[in-house]
Amino acid sequence: MLKPEILDPQGQAVQRALPRLGFEGIADVRQGKRFELEVEGPVDDAALARIHELAETFLANTVIEDFAVKVEEPAAAAEPVK
Amino acid sequence: MLKPEILDPQGQAVQRALPRLGFEGIADVRQGKRFELEVEGPVDDAALARIHELAETFLANTVIEDFAVKVEEPAAAAEPVK
Repeated sequence: MLKPEILDPQGQAVQRALPRLGFEGIADVRQGKRFELEVEGPVDDAALARIHELAETFLANTVIEDFAVKVEEPAAAAEPVK
Repeated sequence: MLKPEILDPQGQAVQRALPRLGFEGIADVRQGKRFELEVEGPVDDAALARIHELAETFLANTVIEDFAVKVEEPAAAAEPVK
């Protein structure tokens, strides 16, 4: 996700459109990206550390974006969300 | 997120690039969108139902995308993830 201090015109456009479309009560909308990674082998601390590095280095632009890595069990998939 | 049966060239490009960049062991990458909505007032069942409808109607293209609505506590923000 874009850092809070970075302007998000896409999210703002969505937020401004919602009342026109009949949806009130949404104070703010921010849009970001999401990556689902399917990991070969166990998702242990070492794998998570590598995925965190991968997300930080290649998937997120850390100058303007924050990111988080979360593990979802169903397919043993870890997914960095930025 | 794109439905599993829908081709995701962006995710595939990331997945093919990773070994070149020194990251092995990622079987699949899929890329999608993420919206963070800040809700005015309580995030009760009625609000969640409206946000689910909003996500289904305007944020997701349900022909090719799946989506999920999750509540994150810190800012009482509900975030549909597609």
